[in-house]
Amino acid sequence: MVKQERAARTREALVQAAAAAFDCAGYEATTLAKISKAAGISIGALTFHFRSKDELADAVQARGEAALRYAADRAAAREEVPLQAAVALTVEIARLLEEDPTVRAAARLARERVDGATAWCSLWLPTLDRLLAQASRGELRPGTDRKTVLALVSYLVTGAEGYARSRAKSPGKADDSAEQQLTRIWDVVLPGISGGDRVSP
Amino acid sequence: MVKQERAARTREALVQAAAAAFDCAGYEATTLAKISKAAGISIGALTFHFRSKDELADAVQARGEAALRYAADRAAAREEVPLQAAVALTVEIARLLEEDPTVRAAARLARERVDGATAWCSLWLPTLDRLLAQASRGELRPGTDRKTVLALVSYLVTGAEGYARSRAKSPGKADDSAEQQLTRIWDVVLPGISGGDRVSP
Repeated sequence: MVKQERAARTREALVQAAAAAFDCAGYEATTLAKISKAAGISIGALTFHFRSKDELADAVQARGEAALRYAADRAAAREEVPLQAAVALTVEIARLLEEDPTVRAAARLARERVDGATAWCSLWLPTLDRLLAQASRGELRPGTDRKTVLALVSYLVTGAEGYARSRAKSPGKADDSAEQQLTRIWDVVLPGISGGDRVSP
Repeated sequence: MVKQERAARTREALVQAAAAAFDCAGYEATTLAKISKAAGISIGALTFHFRSKDELADAVQARGEAALRYAADRAAAREEVPLQAAVALTVEIARLLEEDPTVRAAARLARERVDGATAWCSLWLPTLDRLLAQASRGELRPGTDRKTVLALVSYLVTGAEGYARSRAKSPGKADDSAEQQLTRIWDVVLPGISGGDRVSP
Protein backbone atom coordinates (compact mmCIF):
# COMPACT_ATOMS: atom_id res chain seq x y z
CA MET A 1 0.00 0.00 0.00
CA VAL A 2 2.75 2.39 1.04
CA LYS A 3 4.66 1.19 -1.99
CA GLN A 4 1.72 1.97 -4.27
CA GLU A 5 1.42 5.43 -2.80
CA ARG A 6 5.09 6.08 -3.37
CA ALA A 7 4.79 4.91 -6.97
CA ALA A 8 1.81 7.20 -7.51
CA ARG A 9 3.76 10.11 -6.07
CA THR A 10 6.73 9.37 -8.32
CA ARG A 11 4.49 9.22 -11.39
CA GLU A 12 2.90 12.51 -10.38
CA ALA A 13 6.27 14.21 -9.93
CA LEU A 14 7.34 12.96 -13.35
CA VAL A 15 4.15 14.15 -15.05
CA GLN A 16 4.54 17.59 -13.48
CA ALA A 17 8.22 17.91 -14.40
CA ALA A 18 7.49 16.71 -17.93
CA ALA A 19 4.60 19.17 -18.28
CA ALA A 20 6.84 22.08 -17.27
CA ALA A 21 9.54 20.96 -19.72
CA PHE A 22 7.20 20.33 -22.66
CA ASP A 23 5.38 23.61 -22.02
CA CYS A 24 8.58 25.62 -21.92
CA ALA A 25 10.83 23.92 -24.49
CA GLY A 26 8.47 21.90 -26.67
CA TYR A 27 8.40 18.22 -27.53
CA GLU A 28 11.56 17.95 -29.64
CA ALA A 29 13.90 19.83 -27.32
CA THR A 30 12.77 17.95 -24.22
CA THR A 31 14.69 14.79 -23.30
CA LEU A 32 14.00 12.11 -20.69
CA ALA A 33 17.35 13.04 -19.12
CA LYS A 34 16.21 16.64 -18.58
CA ILE A 35 12.90 15.52 -17.09
CA SER A 36 14.62 13.04 -14.80
CA LYS A 37 16.96 15.76 -13.56
CA ALA A 38 14.17 18.32 -13.07
CA ALA A 39 12.05 15.81 -11.12
CA GLY A 40 15.03 14.64 -9.05
CA ILE A 41 14.18 11.06 -10.02
CA SER A 42 16.70 8.64 -11.54
CA ILE A 43 16.42 7.80 -15.21
CA GLY A 44 15.96 4.15 -14.20
CA ALA A 45 12.92 5.00 -12.07
CA LEU A 46 11.61 7.23 -14.83
CA THR A 47 11.76 4.53 -17.50
CA PHE A 48 10.17 2.08 -15.07
CA HIS A 49 7.08 4.32 -15.04
CA PHE A 50 7.24 5.66 -18.59
CA ARG A 51 9.07 3.67 -21.23
CA SER A 52 9.52 6.55 -23.65
CA LYS A 53 9.14 10.29 -24.15
CA ASP A 54 6.00 9.49 -26.12
CA GLU A 55 4.41 7.67 -23.18
CA LEU A 56 5.21 10.55 -20.86
CA ALA A 57 3.86 13.09 -23.35
CA ASP A 58 0.69 10.99 -23.62
CA ALA A 59 0.28 11.09 -19.83
CA VAL A 60 0.80 14.87 -19.72
CA GLN A 61 -1.67 15.44 -22.54
CA ALA A 62 -4.26 13.14 -20.97
CA ARG A 63 -4.01 15.11 -17.73
CA GLY A 64 -4.32 18.52 -19.38
CA GLU A 65 -7.14 17.35 -21.64
CA ALA A 66 -9.10 15.97 -18.69
CA ALA A 67 -8.98 19.39 -16.99
CA LEU A 68 -10.22 21.06 -20.17
CA ARG A 69 -13.01 18.52 -20.75
CA TYR A 70 -14.21 18.93 -17.19
CA ALA A 71 -14.36 22.72 -17.61
CA ALA A 72 -16.23 22.40 -20.91
CA ASP A 73 -18.75 19.93 -19.47
CA ARG A 74 -19.43 22.19 -16.53
CA ALA A 75 -19.93 25.18 -18.82
CA ALA A 76 -22.39 23.21 -20.96
CA ALA A 77 -24.39 22.27 -17.86
CA ARG A 78 -24.64 25.81 -16.46
CA GLU A 79 -28.05 27.26 -16.00
CA GLU A 80 -27.22 30.77 -17.05
CA VAL A 81 -27.63 32.63 -20.31
CA PRO A 82 -25.58 30.84 -22.99
CA LEU A 83 -23.42 33.87 -23.90
CA GLN A 84 -22.53 34.24 -20.24
CA ALA A 85 -21.65 30.54 -20.07
CA ALA A 86 -19.44 30.85 -23.18
CA VAL A 87 -17.59 33.84 -21.72
CA ALA A 88 -17.18 32.06 -18.38
CA LEU A 89 -15.74 29.01 -20.16
CA THR A 90 -13.07 31.07 -21.93
CA VAL A 91 -12.12 32.71 -18.63
CA GLU A 92 -11.92 29.28 -16.97
CA ILE A 93 -9.65 28.06 -19.81
CA ALA A 94 -7.45 31.13 -19.24
CA ARG A 95 -7.27 30.26 -15.52
CA LEU A 96 -6.32 26.65 -16.28
CA LEU A 97 -3.68 27.80 -18.78
CA GLU A 98 -2.22 30.13 -16.17
CA GLU A 99 -2.27 27.74 -13.24
CA ASP A 100 -1.85 24.24 -14.65
CA PRO A 101 1.34 23.41 -16.59
CA THR A 102 -0.26 20.17 -17.88
CA VAL A 103 -2.92 22.29 -19.64
CA ARG A 104 -0.33 24.57 -21.27
CA ALA A 105 1.73 21.51 -22.21
CA ALA A 106 -1.35 19.77 -23.65
CA ALA A 107 -2.02 22.80 -25.85
CA ARG A 108 1.56 22.90 -27.10
CA LEU A 109 1.98 19.13 -27.53
CA ALA A 110 -1.27 18.82 -29.48
CA ARG A 111 0.21 21.26 -31.97
CA GLU A 112 3.71 19.79 -32.11
CA ARG A 113 3.11 16.05 -32.08
CA VAL A 114 2.15 14.80 -35.47
CA ASP A 115 0.28 11.60 -34.72
CA GLY A 116 -2.60 10.61 -32.59
CA ALA A 117 -2.90 13.79 -30.60
CA THR A 118 -6.34 15.25 -29.97
CA ALA A 119 -6.59 18.64 -31.62
CA TRP A 120 -6.36 21.19 -28.82
CA CYS A 121 -9.31 23.29 -29.95
CA SER A 122 -11.54 20.22 -30.27
CA LEU A 123 -11.56 20.14 -26.46
CA TRP A 124 -13.43 23.42 -26.08
CA LEU A 125 -14.50 24.80 -29.46
CA PRO A 126 -17.54 22.50 -29.94
CA THR A 127 -18.96 23.53 -26.55
CA LEU A 128 -18.43 27.21 -27.34
CA ASP A 129 -20.03 26.69 -30.75
CA ARG A 130 -23.11 25.13 -29.14
CA LEU A 131 -23.40 27.90 -26.55
CA LEU A 132 -23.09 30.59 -29.23
CA ALA A 133 -25.73 28.83 -31.33
CA GLN A 134 -28.08 29.13 -28.36
CA ALA A 135 -26.98 32.73 -27.75
CA SER A 136 -27.71 33.66 -31.34
CA ARG A 137 -31.43 33.25 -30.58
CA GLY A 138 -31.69 36.61 -28.92
CA GLU A 139 -28.58 37.33 -26.89
CA LEU A 140 -26.26 38.34 -29.71
CA ARG A 141 -26.66 41.80 -31.19
CA PRO A 142 -28.91 41.48 -34.27
CA GLY A 143 -26.87 41.03 -37.43
CA THR A 144 -23.86 39.65 -35.56
CA ASP A 145 -22.44 36.68 -37.44
CA ARG A 146 -22.14 33.68 -35.11
CA LYS A 147 -19.23 32.12 -37.02
CA THR A 148 -17.28 35.35 -36.63
CA VAL A 149 -18.00 35.47 -32.91
CA LEU A 150 -16.75 31.89 -32.64
CA ALA A 151 -13.56 32.89 -34.45
CA LEU A 152 -13.17 35.87 -32.12
CA VAL A 153 -13.62 33.64 -29.08
CA SER A 154 -11.03 31.15 -30.31
CA TYR A 155 -8.56 34.00 -31.03
CA LEU A 156 -9.05 35.19 -27.46
CA VAL A 157 -8.32 31.70 -26.09
CA THR A 158 -5.20 31.47 -28.29
CA GLY A 159 -4.15 34.89 -27.04
CA ALA A 160 -4.69 33.83 -23.43
CA GLU A 161 -2.54 30.75 -24.03
CA GLY A 162 0.32 32.87 -25.35
CA TYR A 163 -0.01 35.30 -22.45
CA ALA A 164 -0.15 32.53 -19.84
CA ARG A 165 2.95 30.89 -21.33
CA SER A 166 4.91 34.12 -21.38
CA ARG A 167 4.00 34.65 -17.71
CA ALA A 168 5.09 31.10 -16.84
CA LYS A 169 8.47 31.81 -18.46
CA SER A 170 9.08 34.96 -16.44
CA PRO A 171 7.29 34.35 -13.15
CA GLY A 172 7.05 36.89 -10.36
CA LYS A 173 5.77 39.67 -12.62
CA ALA A 174 3.08 41.82 -11.09
CA ASP A 175 0.95 41.91 -14.26
CA ASP A 176 -2.60 40.68 -14.44
CA SER A 177 -3.13 36.93 -14.52
CA ALA A 178 -4.40 35.46 -17.79
CA GLU A 179 -7.80 35.09 -16.14
CA GLN A 180 -7.89 38.74 -15.04
CA GLN A 181 -6.70 40.01 -18.38
CA LEU A 182 -9.26 38.03 -20.37
CA THR A 183 -12.02 39.20 -18.03
CA ARG A 184 -11.04 42.82 -18.74
CA ILE A 185 -10.93 42.12 -22.47
CA TRP A 186 -14.46 40.73 -22.34
CA ASP A 187 -15.56 43.92 -20.55
CA VAL A 188 -14.46 45.79 -23.65
CA VAL A 189 -15.69 43.29 -26.24
CA LEU A 190 -19.09 42.29 -24.88
CA PRO A 191 -20.95 45.56 -25.49
CA GLY A 192 -20.16 45.14 -29.19
CA ILE A 193 -21.57 41.64 -29.53
CA SER A 194 -24.37 41.32 -27.02
CA GLY A 195 -27.85 42.53 -27.77
CA GLY A 196 -30.50 43.25 -25.20
CA ASP A 197 -29.66 41.54 -21.90
CA ARG A 198 -26.63 42.68 -19.94
CA VAL A 199 -23.94 40.03 -19.90
CA SER A 200 -20.85 40.47 -17.78
CA PRO A 201 -17.69 38.42 -17.77
CA MET B 1 27.49 38.71 -62.65
CA VAL B 2 25.54 35.65 -63.75
CA LYS B 3 27.32 33.78 -60.99
CA GLN B 4 26.24 36.35 -58.42
CA GLU B 5 22.65 36.12 -59.59
CA ARG B 6 22.73 32.37 -59.31
CA ALA B 7 24.14 32.63 -55.78
CA ALA B 8 21.40 35.08 -54.80
CA ARG B 9 18.78 32.74 -56.20
CA THR B 10 20.22 29.80 -54.27
CA ARG B 11 20.25 31.80 -51.03
CA GLU B 12 16.65 32.83 -51.65
CA ALA B 13 15.54 29.25 -52.27
CA LEU B 14 17.27 28.17 -49.06
CA VAL B 15 15.67 30.95 -47.00
CA GLN B 16 12.23 30.04 -48.34
CA ALA B 17 12.67 26.31 -47.73
CA ALA B 18 14.03 26.98 -44.25
CA ALA B 19 11.13 29.33 -43.47
CA ALA B 20 8.59 26.68 -44.44
CA ALA B 21 10.38 24.05 -42.34
CA PHE B 22 10.84 26.26 -39.25
CA ASP B 23 7.24 27.46 -39.48
CA CYS B 24 5.85 23.96 -39.74
CA ALA B 25 8.14 21.88 -37.51
CA GLY B 26 9.88 24.41 -35.27
CA TYR B 27 13.56 25.09 -34.68
CA GLU B 28 14.57 21.89 -32.90
CA ALA B 29 12.93 19.42 -35.28
CA THR B 30 14.30 21.11 -38.40
CA THR B 31 17.66 19.88 -39.72
CA LEU B 32 19.92 21.24 -42.44
CA ALA B 33 19.47 17.91 -44.24
CA LYS B 34 15.70 18.41 -44.39
CA ILE B 35 16.07 21.97 -45.66
CA SER B 36 18.61 20.91 -48.29
CA LYS B 37 16.24 18.22 -49.50
CA ALA B 38 13.20 20.51 -49.57
CA ALA B 39 15.12 23.19 -51.49
CA GLY B 40 16.60 20.66 -53.91
CA ILE B 41 20.05 22.06 -53.12
CA SER B 42 23.00 19.93 -52.04
CA ILE B 43 24.09 20.09 -48.42
CA GLY B 44 27.49 21.28 -49.65
CA ALA B 45 25.95 24.26 -51.44
CA LEU B 46 23.77 24.93 -48.41
CA THR B 47 26.68 25.09 -45.97
CA PHE B 48 28.59 27.27 -48.44
CA HIS B 49 25.84 29.89 -48.02
CA PHE B 50 24.87 29.23 -44.40
CA ARG B 51 27.37 27.60 -42.09
CA SER B 52 24.85 26.45 -39.52
CA LYS B 53 21.17 26.07 -38.71
CA ASP B 54 21.56 29.15 -36.52
CA GLU B 55 22.81 31.26 -39.43
CA LEU B 56 19.92 30.12 -41.59
CA ALA B 57 17.41 30.79 -38.83
CA ASP B 58 18.93 34.27 -38.40
CA ALA B 59 18.43 34.94 -42.12
CA VAL B 60 14.80 33.75 -42.01
CA GLN B 61 14.05 35.85 -38.94
CA ALA B 62 15.70 38.93 -40.44
CA ARG B 63 13.53 38.57 -43.53
CA GLY B 64 10.28 38.12 -41.62
CA GLU B 65 11.13 40.93 -39.21
CA ALA B 66 11.88 43.33 -42.07
CA ALA B 67 8.40 42.69 -43.52
CA LEU B 68 6.84 43.37 -40.14
CA ARG B 69 8.86 46.53 -39.48
CA TYR B 70 7.94 47.89 -42.89
CA ALA B 71 4.24 47.30 -42.20
CA ALA B 72 4.49 48.94 -38.76
CA ASP B 73 6.35 51.98 -40.15
CA ARG B 74 3.76 52.46 -42.86
CA ALA B 75 0.94 52.20 -40.31
CA ALA B 76 2.60 54.81 -38.11
CA ALA B 77 2.88 57.19 -41.06
CA ARG B 78 -0.73 56.90 -42.17
CA GLU B 79 -2.81 59.99 -42.20
CA GLU B 80 -6.00 58.45 -41.01
CA VAL B 81 -7.63 58.27 -37.62
CA PRO B 82 -5.27 56.39 -35.25
CA LEU B 83 -7.75 53.65 -34.32
CA GLN B 84 -8.30 52.99 -38.02
CA ALA B 85 -4.52 52.81 -38.53
CA ALA B 86 -4.17 50.37 -35.62
CA VAL B 87 -6.89 48.11 -37.00
CA ALA B 88 -5.36 48.28 -40.49
CA LEU B 89 -1.95 47.30 -39.08
CA THR B 90 -3.36 44.18 -37.41
CA VAL B 91 -5.08 43.19 -40.66
CA GLU B 92 -1.83 43.75 -42.56
CA ILE B 93 0.02 41.54 -40.04
CA ALA B 94 -2.64 38.86 -40.58
CA ARG B 95 -2.09 39.11 -44.35
CA LEU B 96 1.68 38.78 -43.94
CA LEU B 97 1.25 35.82 -41.60
CA GLU B 98 -1.00 34.16 -44.16
CA GLU B 99 1.08 34.87 -47.24
CA ASP B 100 4.71 34.98 -46.12
CA PRO B 101 6.27 31.86 -44.55
CA THR B 102 9.26 33.93 -43.35
CA VAL B 103 6.86 36.01 -41.23
CA ARG B 104 5.24 32.94 -39.66
CA ALA B 105 8.68 31.42 -39.13
CA ALA B 106 9.98 34.65 -37.56
CA ALA B 107 7.08 34.59 -35.10
CA ARG B 108 7.73 30.97 -34.17
CA LEU B 109 11.53 31.21 -34.05
CA ALA B 110 11.42 34.31 -31.83
CA ARG B 111 9.51 32.22 -29.32
CA GLU B 112 11.58 29.05 -29.60
CA ARG B 113 15.14 30.33 -29.86
CA VAL B 114 16.50 31.26 -26.50
CA ASP B 115 19.24 33.72 -27.33
CA GLY B 116 19.49 36.91 -29.26
CA ALA B 117 16.14 36.76 -30.97
CA THR B 118 14.06 39.91 -31.16
CA ALA B 119 10.84 39.39 -29.25
CA TRP B 120 8.14 38.91 -31.88
CA CYS B 121 5.67 41.32 -30.35
CA SER B 122 8.30 44.06 -30.05
CA LEU B 123 8.04 44.37 -33.85
CA TRP B 124 4.47 45.63 -33.82
CA LEU B 125 3.21 46.17 -30.26
CA PRO B 126 4.97 49.54 -29.68
CA THR B 127 3.40 50.99 -32.85
CA LEU B 128 -0.04 49.73 -31.85
CA ASP B 129 0.48 51.13 -28.36
CA ARG B 130 1.32 54.56 -29.78
CA LEU B 131 -1.68 54.53 -32.13
CA LEU B 132 -4.02 53.53 -29.32
CA ALA B 133 -2.60 56.28 -27.11
CA GLN B 134 -3.58 58.75 -29.82
CA ALA B 135 -6.94 57.03 -30.28
CA SER B 136 -7.68 57.31 -26.57
CA ARG B 137 -8.01 61.09 -27.01
CA GLY B 138 -11.50 60.82 -28.43
CA GLU B 139 -11.81 57.79 -30.66
CA LEU B 140 -12.14 55.13 -27.98
CA ARG B 141 -15.47 54.76 -26.24
CA PRO B 142 -15.30 56.80 -23.01
CA GLY B 143 -14.19 54.67 -20.08
CA THR B 144 -12.48 52.11 -22.30
CA ASP B 145 -9.15 51.15 -20.77
CA ARG B 146 -6.36 51.58 -23.33
CA LYS B 147 -4.14 48.90 -21.80
CA THR B 148 -7.00 46.42 -22.13
CA VAL B 149 -7.57 47.38 -25.76
CA LEU B 150 -3.85 46.84 -26.39
CA ALA B 151 -4.11 43.39 -24.80
CA LEU B 152 -7.16 42.63 -26.94
CA VAL B 153 -5.34 43.70 -30.07
CA SER B 154 -2.32 41.53 -29.26
CA TYR B 155 -4.61 38.54 -28.56
CA LEU B 156 -6.18 39.06 -31.99
CA VAL B 157 -2.75 39.08 -33.66
CA THR B 158 -1.77 35.92 -31.78
CA GLY B 159 -5.05 34.35 -32.85
CA ALA B 160 -4.44 35.34 -36.46
CA GLU B 161 -0.98 33.77 -36.29
CA GLY B 162 -2.43 30.47 -35.07
CA TYR B 163 -5.13 30.56 -37.74
CA ALA B 164 -2.66 31.40 -40.53
CA ARG B 165 -0.37 28.56 -39.44
CA SER B 166 -3.19 26.02 -39.34
CA ARG B 167 -4.19 27.10 -42.86
CA ALA B 168 -0.60 26.75 -44.08
CA LYS B 169 -0.56 23.20 -42.71
CA SER B 170 -3.70 22.17 -44.57
CA PRO B 171 -3.70 24.27 -47.71
CA GLY B 172 -6.49 24.26 -50.26
CA LYS B 173 -9.22 24.81 -47.69
CA ALA B 174 -11.94 27.14 -48.82
CA ASP B 175 -12.15 28.98 -45.48
CA ASP B 176 -11.56 32.69 -45.07
CA SER B 177 -7.98 33.89 -45.23
CA ALA B 178 -6.48 35.18 -41.97
CA GLU B 179 -6.85 38.69 -43.34
CA GLN B 180 -10.55 38.19 -44.15
CA GLN B 181 -11.29 36.54 -40.83
CA LEU B 182 -9.62 39.26 -38.79
CA THR B 183 -11.47 41.92 -40.79
CA ARG B 184 -14.76 40.23 -39.90
CA ILE B 185 -13.74 39.98 -36.26
CA TRP B 186 -13.02 43.72 -36.18
CA ASP B 187 -16.51 44.33 -37.62
CA VAL B 188 -17.86 42.67 -34.51
CA VAL B 189 -15.40 44.15 -32.00
CA LEU B 190 -15.15 47.77 -33.13
CA PRO B 191 -18.66 48.93 -32.13
CA GLY B 192 -17.77 47.95 -28.55
CA ILE B 193 -14.56 49.96 -28.35
CA SER B 194 -14.99 52.94 -30.62
CA GLY B 195 -16.71 56.07 -29.45
CA GLY B 196 -18.09 58.78 -31.71
CA ASP B 197 -16.58 58.48 -35.18
CA ARG B 198 -17.31 55.45 -37.26
CA VAL B 199 -14.25 53.30 -37.80
CA SER B 200 -14.32 50.36 -40.14
CA PRO B 201 -11.75 47.62 -40.57
